[in-house]
Amino acid sequence: MNEVTSRLADYVLTARLDDIPQDVRKEARRALLNYVGCALGGSRHEAMDITLAALGPLAGPSSAVVLGRGDRTDPLLASLLNGISSHVHDYDDTTPGNYIHPTSPVASALLAYASCNRVSGAQLELAFIMGFEAVSRIGNATYPAHYDAGWHSTGSIGVFGSAIAIGRLLGLSHRQMVWAIGLAATQSCGLREMFGSMAKSFHPGRSAQSGYMAALLAQKDFTAGVKALEGPRGFAAVQSSEYDLARITDRLGEDFELRVNAYKPFPCGIVVHPTIDACIQLRERHGIDPRAIAAVRLRVAPLVKDLCDKRDISTGLEGKFSAYHAAAIGLARGKAGLGEFTDEAVNDPLVRQVRTRVESNGDPAVPEDGVRVEVELADGRRFAIDLEHSLGNLERPLSDSQLEAKFLDQSGVLAPAQARELVAACWRLEELDDVPELVALAVPAAQAQ
Amino acid sequence: MNEVTSRLADYVLTARLDDIPQDVRKEARRALLNYVGCALGGSRHEAMDITLAALGPLAGPSSAVVLGRGDRTDPLLASLLNGISSHVHDYDDTTPGNYIHPTSPVASALLAYASCNRVSGAQLELAFIMGFEAVSRIGNATYPAHYDAGWHSTGSIGVFGSAIAIGRLLGLSHRQMVWAIGLAATQSCGLREMFGSMAKSFHPGRSAQSGYMAALLAQKDFTAGVKALEGPRGFAAVQSSEYDLARITDRLGEDFELRVNAYKPFPCGIVVHPTIDACIQLRERHGIDPRAIAAVRLRVAPLVKDLCDKRDISTGLEGKFSAYHAAAIGLARGKAGLGEFTDEAVNDPLVRQVRTRVESNGDPAVPEDGVRVEVELADGRRFAIDLEHSLGNLERPLSDSQLEAKFLDQSGVLAPAQARELVAACWRLEELDDVPELVALAVPAAQAQ
Repeated sequence: MNEVTSRLADYVLTARLDDIPQDVRKEARRALLNYVGCALGGSRHEAMDITLAALGPLAGPSSAVVLGRGDRTDPLLASLLNGISSHVHDYDDTTPGNYIHPTSPVASALLAYASCNRVSGAQLELAFIMGFEAVSRIGNATYPAHYDAGWHSTGSIGVFGSAIAIGRLLGLSHRQMVWAIGLAATQSCGLREMFGSMAKSFHPGRSAQSGYMAALLAQKDFTAGVKALEGPRGFAAVQSSEYDLARITDRLGEDFELRVNAYKPFPCGIVVHPTIDACIQLRERHGIDPRAIAAVRLRVAPLVKDLCDKRDISTGLEGKFSAYHAAAIGLARGKAGLGEFTDEAVNDPLVRQVRTRVESNGDPAVPEDGVRVEVELADGRRFAIDLEHSLGNLERPLSDSQLEAKFLDQSGVLAPAQARELVAACWRLEELDDVPELVALAVPAAQAQ
Repeated sequence: MNEVTSRLADYVLTARLDDIPQDVRKEARRALLNYVGCALGGSRHEAMDITLAALGPLAGPSSAVVLGRGDRTDPLLASLLNGISSHVHDYDDTTPGNYIHPTSPVASALLAYASCNRVSGAQLELAFIMGFEAVSRIGNATYPAHYDAGWHSTGSIGVFGSAIAIGRLLGLSHRQMVWAIGLAATQSCGLREMFGSMAKSFHPGRSAQSGYMAALLAQKDFTAGVKALEGPRGFAAVQSSEYDLARITDRLGEDFELRVNAYKPFPCGIVVHPTIDACIQLRERHGIDPRAIAAVRLRVAPLVKDLCDKRDISTGLEGKFSAYHAAAIGLARGKAGLGEFTDEAVNDPLVRQVRTRVESNGDPAVPEDGVRVEVELADGRRFAIDLEHSLGNLERPLSDSQLEAKFLDQSGVLAPAQARELVAACWRLEELDDVPELVALAVPAAQAQ
């Protein structure tokens, strides 16, 4: 595998949108729709205000748009900010085979770029696919050693995707793309030690920004090592104790990682997703009145007992990792969007009442992606469900309309009509002459601010 | 070692200049003088022009100064540029115990900051010492595993120093400094695979910029993991297979790494330094006329034969790694500054004539820091020298006046009088009320441009 970097550069520069299967292109639009919704949903997070306060005064000419905000800034800082907002609620997509959230670093740079440069929807879609595929393939090549060592690969590998995506739009030559990949590799960073702090969401943002910068430097012939992925002191050798670089280049252009991309239906710990899903289904199927619930009995995988067994909670953050809260919101509200993981929701009297009636038992017979739920009403009626695969799993992907609903649940910063227009623009991406039009829709209109 | 990050933060925030021994403070000024000279010497390198062309259009308000250039830009980009210029000729200082060039990442951020903020010389000197000590101590704690794995520690560890130095000037609280160290750790990067390309000099620049950004974010309460150095997925565990964190905190404030900092006398491969040094000494001692040289016989350490055995060369870069060229310039020119490693110098007829008369033999009895040189003149006279330690080694440090000469050799972008004024300002650093005055001297006056 002596030519991995060169071969990857060759592919990402020469691929044409016409060569990409339609289902992959559709999946790219689904990923971008999901991404934009997450960026809107996180756009008012404290981490965004802090970053703008700290770095805004040093930012360059305000040519670029920060998704979901009125602020304009330079495209490098916009990349950082888009990366933070889209990941800060841990609600963005995941390739389950390598635990990476590939869209955030790639799309955060792309939409910053596209907000201040003329780019067609087809060009953007292709550049996104190139970046996404590179990230997930490099992730596959170094998983699990790289992740297990403590790297937050969304950052440490995401940087390759933003460099490649922006590099493709800039029209880099082959040797420039090789340098861009080198400049990305030598900026690969992001430690899992940061989990639980704002710095986690900094990772995709910084990798979007660093990759963007790598492409800009390479465009002007800033040179870098040409074996960044495969060299003896390159990315794989230094940052992964075991790796298989063939997974980067094998069947390139034939197999696509976008086909195994998963969208989270709920902004909380993934192990409680089956519980939420099952409880929403029970409520809908049987028209359950949450005030009439006498008891809720969960049989969960032992891992869920280990990770999410706290019933007495008072904050939204605790709610994200409580199987009891998961059951309560599913039954009491019939949904689990951002609004169900706020302090207010956790302390909502009805949610709290249901939560106190939940029991949870670990059962090795229950798979991690499944759950068994039984609800008993005050009148003695009982309803049960056995869930094998949770919504959002690759076996049960979110439908287009579920993705739209997730988007709209997060788009409160926009007027409803504008949000729907933005959804439509995401679906029509390939037909758009000019992506900046789409980006403009992701900024609150004056009357909506 | 559960509290390494917290203890380091405590020290760098509470240390007072009065507590630092005078010899360490003097060494800090020597390091800064050497640094500024290197930054001037590299300020017109192609990598600088490229970086400015690529990133200048996206830069923020032009409040900061790029050392050695007329350009003004924002202080984050200025940090990157200062880091590139000061390292691009591989001429900056080194702590030999860990192979780090600690001053470049720390001072590049500091002088960018000081070019647009009111800072006294004493404040700057103290912040520099804090950053330098942190870098070299973290280097010691993770050497050799971290470096051997393929990390260019000047970048991957330098980032801690810039974060700490800027954090000290910003007056961070203890918890903010802990976050700044965390945000530095999670930006630690830089692969040795980049050696031989411009990306090598990008490393100290990017680490200066990233550390500066870490401190700015922490100042506004952007949170990070609080065990960035010692945590199970922190810097040491993830980026070094073996480490001894006690070396970060043991005798903090008592032992100082500045005391073991070394300054390169010649901008070329360190293994040919003894040859240059010995040849200059022979020329001076015996008044050798280079045109009269019939033969030059080198006995060198076997490593030198391995690394630097090319006689037929045509470029300045090749000259940096040729023992033959090393001997030739020492004898033909009596010095080895930047001007001796240009294409022109390598092709200078007199230098070339001497070079063709050099023989080199490896001898295991010769130490790596030594050499034996014999020169035979056309009239049959022979002069020999046995060098045990090369100039620049900790056993034979550059004197203050040798550091000044090195500085002046690199300061061609400034008028001579201004360069001498700048040297004087570096020596008087502790007395300066306002460092921006010093920085202003490092910018070519209009008439000198």
